[in-house]
Amino acid sequence: MDDYERLIEIYKKSAILESVSEVLEWDQEVMMPEGALPVRTQQSATIAALGHDILTSDEMNGLLVSIEREELNSDQAANVREIERNYKRHKNVPNGLVRELQETRIRGVESWKEARKKNDFGLFLPYLRKVFALSGKVADCIDPDRHPYEVLLESYEQDISREEIKSHLTTIKEHLIPLIGRIKEQKIDDSLIAQDVAIEKQKEFNSFIARAIGYDFTRGRLDVSAHPFTSCYGRITTRYDNGWWSAISGTIHEAGHAMYEHHLPLQHFGTPLGQYCSMSVHESQSRIWENNIGKSKHFWEKFFPKLQDSYDLDVELDDFYKIINRVEPSFIRTEADELTYNLHIILRFEIELGLIEGKTDFDDLPRIWNEKFREYLGIVPPDDSFGVLQDIHWAWGNIGYFPTYTLGSMIAAQLFEAAQKDIPDLIDNIGQGKFEELRSWLNDNIWCHGKKYLTKELIRRATGKDPSPDDYLEYLENKYAGIYEL
Amino acid sequence: MDDYERLIEIYKKSAILESVSEVLEWDQEVMMPEGALPVRTQQSATIAALGHDILTSDEMNGLLVSIEREELNSDQAANVREIERNYKRHKNVPNGLVRELQETRIRGVESWKEARKKNDFGLFLPYLRKVFALSGKVADCIDPDRHPYEVLLESYEQDISREEIKSHLTTIKEHLIPLIGRIKEQKIDDSLIAQDVAIEKQKEFNSFIARAIGYDFTRGRLDVSAHPFTSCYGRITTRYDNGWWSAISGTIHEAGHAMYEHHLPLQHFGTPLGQYCSMSVHESQSRIWENNIGKSKHFWEKFFPKLQDSYDLDVELDDFYKIINRVEPSFIRTEADELTYNLHIILRFEIELGLIEGKTDFDDLPRIWNEKFREYLGIVPPDDSFGVLQDIHWAWGNIGYFPTYTLGSMIAAQLFEAAQKDIPDLIDNIGQGKFEELRSWLNDNIWCHGKKYLTKELIRRATGKDPSPDDYLEYLENKYAGIYEL
Repeated sequence: MDDYERLIEIYKKSAILESVSEVLEWDQEVMMPEGALPVRTQQSATIAALGHDILTSDEMNGLLVSIEREELNSDQAANVREIERNYKRHKNVPNGLVRELQETRIRGVESWKEARKKNDFGLFLPYLRKVFALSGKVADCIDPDRHPYEVLLESYEQDISREEIKSHLTTIKEHLIPLIGRIKEQKIDDSLIAQDVAIEKQKEFNSFIARAIGYDFTRGRLDVSAHPFTSCYGRITTRYDNGWWSAISGTIHEAGHAMYEHHLPLQHFGTPLGQYCSMSVHESQSRIWENNIGKSKHFWEKFFPKLQDSYDLDVELDDFYKIINRVEPSFIRTEADELTYNLHIILRFEIELGLIEGKTDFDDLPRIWNEKFREYLGIVPPDDSFGVLQDIHWAWGNIGYFPTYTLGSMIAAQLFEAAQKDIPDLIDNIGQGKFEELRSWLNDNIWCHGKKYLTKELIRRATGKDPSPDDYLEYLENKYAGIYEL
Repeated sequence: MDDYERLIEIYKKSAILESVSEVLEWDQEVMMPEGALPVRTQQSATIAALGHDILTSDEMNGLLVSIEREELNSDQAANVREIERNYKRHKNVPNGLVRELQETRIRGVESWKEARKKNDFGLFLPYLRKVFALSGKVADCIDPDRHPYEVLLESYEQDISREEIKSHLTTIKEHLIPLIGRIKEQKIDDSLIAQDVAIEKQKEFNSFIARAIGYDFTRGRLDVSAHPFTSCYGRITTRYDNGWWSAISGTIHEAGHAMYEHHLPLQHFGTPLGQYCSMSVHESQSRIWENNIGKSKHFWEKFFPKLQDSYDLDVELDDFYKIINRVEPSFIRTEADELTYNLHIILRFEIELGLIEGKTDFDDLPRIWNEKFREYLGIVPPDDSFGVLQDIHWAWGNIGYFPTYTLGSMIAAQLFEAAQKDIPDLIDNIGQGKFEELRSWLNDNIWCHGKKYLTKELIRRATGKDPSPDDYLEYLENKYAGIYEL
């Protein structure tokens, strides 16, 4: 076995352990009774620590030194590039810290669930503090000379810097605030959204719509969890406690993520070539289905009659389209419209930056959250479960993750624009519920490449230009000009 | 850290990996869509191989040599004894073989499911052949000088030898065949068993009865699988496709297993002191609840009114008791009565012995199965799904496992007899649905000890004598004399 093959063999073990962690986390979110937590904590921590040991072994180090890089083809070179990057991110983080962070995450998620249910931020506070402290330590181990947020962010997006993100977010904010301002006074009656629909009917329709866009139930499943997510080889979840529309848009969003996971090249499973490019690209795959397609009128021309019939909705397609796209400040990020959504992200970005820099006191978090909320959205959450406690991300230690949501929406618009150029019938196809050509375009341009290219190169190859907010803002302007009288 | 602590630290990793395998296997049986198999196969094989690497590491070997045994207390000595035994069982098995066997098991289970569904033994045959071949190789690596069946059996029961098992099984067979003969002509009308009951009602009652005997839903769950099992920190399954009584008795059986798992001392999780004693003892914990309690008239004095009401059963308690205990040769082991059950086991014991010794041709298996079935039970399965394809065990590579079922029933009767002596009100308590005292007796005598004692010592301490068929046969004679006119 040569150096490259041996490198891949070792790396695969650590990557497969990570995929096992996903099974454990899926199970914890969807199936596990909470009394099993003491056992699960030890399981998850052991898997994380073992993966870390393998990734940072002396043999791995030796191979990365000895491997003859000029003899690698471009696929192999990409694998070695990413393995080395991963090695460097882990090698200085002590095993005990990995284990402690993992245990804190597992317990943190359970405390978050309880805090959210009981609307008691104090229950979550000690875990939140500890997750941030340990994450800060990790960042410091990886690179003590760089801003810790930048270091953490690179777990999710290595190719778009904190400064670039800030610049994109600022551009987006500067366009959206006046746009939202122009819309503000025009109310759309959305009482339809509050209509009760039996859960069984909803489950049936959500399965149907996931399958209709191409979600593969032979490899995945659709379940219920407190926070919708995709994990464990493309299993998806949604939730039915925020109304029937939230469930549908959650399902379509997660199915988009899952189709990416299901189309990563299986022959490269466990190596970077079989892994997703970055979280912003991953998010673009959920957003393109959720927003550009799943909130378009064409899409519902095909599917609304069935929905209307099944859910007994007393409304016409035109009004339905306006209702699902109505713009209105709201408390819950995952329920927000495409415009105000980004303000939810900017708020989180600023807050987590303050926390990691030590400029924000954790005790103050609910107050700061609510103040910023009033400033950006003009409303104040009635309680913390509608405010600072709504998201699972910080409990899981996903610091630096939130910006990838807006980056994802931005990239989705850019991809959708490029796909429209390459597939002249795209809009018609969507209107007929035909998605083969689009899926095949996404496969050729995004899915099949795994992590071969970094985000910018991948998007340049797919769209001819670097990721930027241009197409996104144009898409939003046009869309909302059609819905509101602007 | 001293040698003992370091030994425990290392061993824990391998034991926790084994517990992670259980999560993966539970998920595969209960949740996983079959298209995820290529990924799951790699996950399970990687976990198995890593656990093996850790258990057989040079450091482990060194510690087992250097550890000062005379300084250990009795708990520590038991841990070291079992760790060393485990080390010796694994050290000569090459990693590649572990991985190959694990992959074959994972694929074997899926092929078994398909073969059973399609009633096509040929689909399963290549996997069955391979599982036995690889298991034989494993046995040969562990100890080439001993009978391979004896070596494999010791994965499940290290303290009762093949010869002892043979002797117990022969004693049992010699008593039961005439007993079954005396019963044979007395038919009990069991049409009640075929009565349709809505699955939702059944789920409700099964949850109720599990909870009633003490199953802890805060740590476990009750789901559905092709073959009822307990795994993954005491999660249980049952099945509803063999009628309502099969579901109930499966649930009670698995709840018995799970209560043992839930009461193993959590502070010793990942070490032998936190693990079950042996599969025969484990099985005694399911059988005592399933048979000695769950098929007794006292038990149903308490619970029959609720069952009768919920399932709308048109029968009196006396007849219900006779029906659930009727003796009649039948095809499916898990549905068999307490008497003929043991003939199902003896048949499997003989067949797997023939296969592992190379005396039986795999192609011939359906024929041999059916011939033995006719010989022991006087009936012939209508097809292989009611015959050789009915059990998952060989697909999972569990060779030498079946005898522990009869050993378990035997030990259960012995424990129940001893418990009756120690708890004068035991029978009355059961009649009132009160199980605290019995659970506490089981905890003190069995559950809390983990693997501190081997099977015989554990049972001697609990009952005052070695495991033997005496109490079991007396229990069966008395019970069936009361049901049939003998």
